[in-house]
Amino acid sequence: MSELRHDPINRRWVIIAMERAKRPKEFEFPPPIPASDEPPCPLCPGQEAETPPEIMAIREQGPPNSPNWQVRVIPNKRPVLAIEGDPDRRGVGLYDRMRGIGAHELVIESPEHRRKPGQIPLLQFSGALAASRQRLADLMHDRRFKYIMINRNYGAAAGATIHHPFQQVVATPVTPLAVVSKLETAKAHFAVKERCLFCDVLTHEIDDGSRIVALDEHFVTIAPYASRFAYELQIFPRRHSHQFVDMDQGMIERLAAHMLDIFRRMDVVLGDPPFHWMLINAPNAGAGVPRPGYWTTLPWDFHWHIEILPRLTPMAGFEWGTGLYINPTPPEDAAAFLRDAR
Amino acid sequence: MSELRHDPINRRWVIIAMERAKRPKEFEFPPPIPASDEPPCPLCPGQEAETPPEIMAIREQGPPNSPNWQVRVIPNKRPVLAIEGDPDRRGVGLYDRMRGIGAHELVIESPEHRRKPGQIPLLQFSGALAASRQRLADLMHDRRFKYIMINRNYGAAAGATIHHPFQQVVATPVTPLAVVSKLETAKAHFAVKERCLFCDVLTHEIDDGSRIVALDEHFVTIAPYASRFAYELQIFPRRHSHQFVDMDQGMIERLAAHMLDIFRRMDVVLGDPPFHWMLINAPNAGAGVPRPGYWTTLPWDFHWHIEILPRLTPMAGFEWGTGLYINPTPPEDAAAFLRDAR
Repeated sequence: MSELRHDPINRRWVIIAMERAKRPKEFEFPPPIPASDEPPCPLCPGQEAETPPEIMAIREQGPPNSPNWQVRVIPNKRPVLAIEGDPDRRGVGLYDRMRGIGAHELVIESPEHRRKPGQIPLLQFSGALAASRQRLADLMHDRRFKYIMINRNYGAAAGATIHHPFQQVVATPVTPLAVVSKLETAKAHFAVKERCLFCDVLTHEIDDGSRIVALDEHFVTIAPYASRFAYELQIFPRRHSHQFVDMDQGMIERLAAHMLDIFRRMDVVLGDPPFHWMLINAPNAGAGVPRPGYWTTLPWDFHWHIEILPRLTPMAGFEWGTGLYINPTPPEDAAAFLRDAR
Repeated sequence: MSELRHDPINRRWVIIAMERAKRPKEFEFPPPIPASDEPPCPLCPGQEAETPPEIMAIREQGPPNSPNWQVRVIPNKRPVLAIEGDPDRRGVGLYDRMRGIGAHELVIESPEHRRKPGQIPLLQFSGALAASRQRLADLMHDRRFKYIMINRNYGAAAGATIHHPFQQVVATPVTPLAVVSKLETAKAHFAVKERCLFCDVLTHEIDDGSRIVALDEHFVTIAPYASRFAYELQIFPRRHSHQFVDMDQGMIERLAAHMLDIFRRMDVVLGDPPFHWMLINAPNAGAGVPRPGYWTTLPWDFHWHIEILPRLTPMAGFEWGTGLYINPTPPEDAAAFLRDAR
């Protein structure tokens, strides 16, 4: 018998399909990147002239745009949103439109072209997270931008076209619907309980234990009770914090170590799976000054987190039409496999 | 410059990425089904003993479960939701769960294993739509079910594992979030305008013309103004109707002819693309009697439609995290290519 479970954060039901339960190695997915993808790519050292000039970099010596870097941040050569101009928002008959204003940057995690996510050296990965944090802190000051997303795609099934590891930083002139929905739920919970919804979930999960994948002094990774996808994970800071930029360098390093450990466990259990990770952060909230169209209060009641979505099975029309997901792996099983992986 | 466009029905922004605009044949996707998929499959004629006993069928002669059929309806052998029992809905700590009660049936569109969607004979396809309509009408009387989805997946990238064409009918004990959102928007629009939101969109689109793919006396297919995906389409009945079961046999036949024409155009322009289509229908609304947890009013202000989502590019983490989609094909271009296809 399948079970329907309700997600208290996203207010949606999911179907945990016990009859279709799959063991870790039963998933069939294409290899992460085509074998034809060989270095050097435009993100490799020595190819700096192929990219727009760098915004920042971590290198011991040498001038900007020289090859001797560990982490490098560049504007996307073909950005989905352009940095210059005014949104020029207006109505068009029934509809609304604005110009595609925003920022689209790449944070190259390593000079090495072909590294699995869990194989990137800690110093490079924590450097990349610190660089993304710094870009986020900088872009937050641009009042045209309402939200800034940091994410990484690994594997062709997750939308990546090359091996070379990079994070994306995208600033948007709208607060995305998926984020607004979580903010509203967190706000409603706080209004009733005077507690953070996410902190309540973490307390419950740590007490229960069955969906915990990894737990250290500062971070916890869980397989959510109402996971949409097999092996879906969420990483939370244990101490309440509504925005990613509040972390200091020491915390960034601890987060990097925690994430690398999770990536290695996923590789062991699932065999180099394609996946996304995304930072779900508080929006800009008008830089503290209420302004029309912005999330109007500082979202203290929010709790930043990272979502990891493995792409093990394609989505079907039923899920697109309903938003009701069918997950073939109970999150308790996913957590147990990952917890025991070495 | 990209453009952000707002979808007035789903209240979400999308990014139409003009810089990344792709011509029809530039999309790369795997072949719809692995070449190893050969008939007979369990859905083929002569294999009736491999499936649960049929619920209904269209055949000229012969007893139930004999091979001589044109369209055949069976319960799914491995349903995601089971037909028997009570939902037993209850709280679990912070969370909510219920048993996986529902219905999961397959409507086999043709006795022939290997047919592209546009190649299915009109009589078989309209017979299949009529059978799905009849199953919907029947399942609506079961008061445990709040919503019934009819959909079809074509191609491996859309979640199909065999060529044999079938629709799915799935009844769920919850009203799905994606549907609730549209119902609420339609209701709010009607409260202000005393007009159907969808009828307003159709009037605007037919006047404008640039996003019309096909238009006949009874049905219209448009590429939505704020399409999330390249070549996303919506089919609407031109006359206001909130539920699919209101159609008579003549209208079903006209809808079938309209859909086959659209499928053929997609094949010509995109080269046998994987896709989903889904019926977005009014929920059961407590079978007309307000009951707790059901959509409480009869949704006269809703307007049923069919969504077609080609699966030409994978979704990336940015889209999962934000719900803000990046579409590389302006819908005006998609509509023009499909309109001109022969």
